[in-house]
Amino acid sequence: MSQTAPAPRINGERLWSRLMQMGRVGATPQGGCNRQALTELDFEGRRLLCQWATTAGCSVRVDAIGNLFVRRAGSHDSLPVVLTGSHLDTQPTGGRFDGVYGVLAGLEVIETLNEHAVTTSHPIEVAVWCNEEGCRFPVSMMGSAVWAGRLPLEAAYALRDRDGTSVQDALARAQVATGVPITRQAVKAALEAHIEQGPLLERRSKIIGIVTGVQHMCRHEVTITGQEAHAGPTPMELRRDPIRALAEILPHLYAAAAAHGPDARLTIGIVETHPGSPNTVPGRLRFTIDLRHPDRAQYDALRIAADDIVTRTLSSTGLGGEIRHAWESPGVAFDPACVDAVRTAAASLGYAAMEMVSGAGHDSCNTAPVVPTAMIFVPCAGGLSHNEAEDAAPADLEAGANVLLRTMLSLAM
Amino acid sequence: MSQTAPAPRINGERLWSRLMQMGRVGATPQGGCNRQALTELDFEGRRLLCQWATTAGCSVRVDAIGNLFVRRAGSHDSLPVVLTGSHLDTQPTGGRFDGVYGVLAGLEVIETLNEHAVTTSHPIEVAVWCNEEGCRFPVSMMGSAVWAGRLPLEAAYALRDRDGTSVQDALARAQVATGVPITRQAVKAALEAHIEQGPLLERRSKIIGIVTGVQHMCRHEVTITGQEAHAGPTPMELRRDPIRALAEILPHLYAAAAAHGPDARLTIGIVETHPGSPNTVPGRLRFTIDLRHPDRAQYDALRIAADDIVTRTLSSTGLGGEIRHAWESPGVAFDPACVDAVRTAAASLGYAAMEMVSGAGHDSCNTAPVVPTAMIFVPCAGGLSHNEAEDAAPADLEAGANVLLRTMLSLAM
Repeated sequence: MSQTAPAPRINGERLWSRLMQMGRVGATPQGGCNRQALTELDFEGRRLLCQWATTAGCSVRVDAIGNLFVRRAGSHDSLPVVLTGSHLDTQPTGGRFDGVYGVLAGLEVIETLNEHAVTTSHPIEVAVWCNEEGCRFPVSMMGSAVWAGRLPLEAAYALRDRDGTSVQDALARAQVATGVPITRQAVKAALEAHIEQGPLLERRSKIIGIVTGVQHMCRHEVTITGQEAHAGPTPMELRRDPIRALAEILPHLYAAAAAHGPDARLTIGIVETHPGSPNTVPGRLRFTIDLRHPDRAQYDALRIAADDIVTRTLSSTGLGGEIRHAWESPGVAFDPACVDAVRTAAASLGYAAMEMVSGAGHDSCNTAPVVPTAMIFVPCAGGLSHNEAEDAAPADLEAGANVLLRTMLSLAM
Repeated sequence: MSQTAPAPRINGERLWSRLMQMGRVGATPQGGCNRQALTELDFEGRRLLCQWATTAGCSVRVDAIGNLFVRRAGSHDSLPVVLTGSHLDTQPTGGRFDGVYGVLAGLEVIETLNEHAVTTSHPIEVAVWCNEEGCRFPVSMMGSAVWAGRLPLEAAYALRDRDGTSVQDALARAQVATGVPITRQAVKAALEAHIEQGPLLERRSKIIGIVTGVQHMCRHEVTITGQEAHAGPTPMELRRDPIRALAEILPHLYAAAAAHGPDARLTIGIVETHPGSPNTVPGRLRFTIDLRHPDRAQYDALRIAADDIVTRTLSSTGLGGEIRHAWESPGVAFDPACVDAVRTAAASLGYAAMEMVSGAGHDSCNTAPVVPTAMIFVPCAGGLSHNEAEDAAPADLEAGANVLLRTMLSLAM
């Protein structure tokens, strides 16, 4: 692209229309999407994308873990790829934008280059990372982790859903060639456009988030073992009641989160009692603790505080139990040059932008350790995500795709 | 029985042996019982009882709600019945004594009278009340409630289990004649022997509890509606998190229970989060509150306190929700003359006894408003009940049956 030619701009209407079309695959009555990884609906969504991609003259390939790559050749096609993309799978009660936006924004970049007959030196690829959500098969960002060499292929294959179907079974059923090595061409940069999934851009009236990294996060599973007893005759002081332990733990956990500043995040997503009878003191309690913080020292302190609260309460109540560290994803700092390319693109387009740290994990967490990576956020209504009411403004989605386009052009020419 | 004949005494070994035999019907691997109301196992247990009863020369009949009555004629058989009994159904992870003991102790009274060739003036009956536990069909003490005219027959018939089977279907399958009116002969007194299901007798080294009544009790269901949101990006202060409300409610509830004295009981038996994903702030929380107190004023105050705690927290957090009063069973004071007959019998046998209020509901709560009623408690190990580890000492079970025998004799001669 010469400096004097009119700068290519995204066709926001087509982007919106395709988001709505993709949203009909697995649409839920409440306006959301249930298109979980490697289901028939997931593959239906992928076929729709492939149809658009091949019509746009792109080649398509799927690797052995089910990542799908849409490729637009470069004039020097062996140069490192300028990669973008996200995921098409959703939560069971997910929305129409989480992940999907990043994939279709990437496709829109290709369509726009086609329409303006722009040839890039570097090849451009749009990745659809397999099983980002981790709700059917319980590892989030699975496909990108395998691609990046952070998760062994066999470990991913062995993951099973609640019905006992393995990832390998599900891939084989869809005729994905499994068992072959995952190879990757050199990548110059990996970019991911995504809805913010939080309310900060909206609150501060910005339309572009220049994402400098991802916060530290971990998930604990706490079990507390008491003793089942009849609700009536057993005096309170003789009970071994896990809920009384919960009554001590919860306020301390929320206080600990508050003590670690406004960037701390604490989520108790699951609480379960066993046997679950209204007139029986539960013999067992299980709950999850999700902790996140962008600052390493604060994050570590919050983790230690949560551990202490649980173990201290178990000790003071004399109940059995444990806090199991089920999962951890260390924070990520994105590549400064890639972040700067996003910053420059947003500024050149005149969009109100702010720098921020992602609260959620993304496939970019997996690409960042192996290739230069950055992300672009756009607002979503009320900051809602993982929710059927997830929504975003067409103008904001178009703006984010324009920043993606300009960033990719700056890297791919 | 003349004052000079040797007083009949219970055969404790046979009682224990029959408890163990009945415990094998629906036995669980952990030594408990799963013999839920109107299941095939329930009917298998009833058939075993009927076999013993008919061998003992008794007649057996089943009423239209599935209550089973074992009858030993009196010399003046149209006199009011002296009734005893309890239930044979269990919790899903129940024990071998709850309910079963009261039925088999009643049968043992009849066997003992047979062996001593004692003829009573009044007829004696042992009732097996249908669906006392209320875990499969969700109304506790169902059969006795219908018998007492406190629950319409049609309402009981319409109760359904989780598979959609109604009480009427389940009765019809077992060839119980449904749809005929429930009639009852005049009853002179109704007695129920039962394990305490609490630890007080054991703690105070008593073997007989003279039960003067049953505490007041109610069950509430609380739902709190928040907003599903992603665990990462949403700042704590922008969340609508039902678990944060729970963190406020739980300590206040336990404090309220403590403030209403050692006889107050608070049980949070069920806590459920929806959608139940570790990285999503729950959009909905549901939990149950079971409150009990023997003193009416304290009970009322505790109920009001619980209501206030929930509604105040909903108001202060701005979350939606409600506290639904799902069920209430007002306290019961047993018949002073019947209680005195138990007291006299225990004293004449020289057993260490104490007066107490039942913490749990029993079929006697339903008989008490319509016929003179009292209960006899015996210790159970550690006060455990509604638990597969439920246990009791053979000597204590024999003692309770002897008190039952002597009480019934005093009323039936």
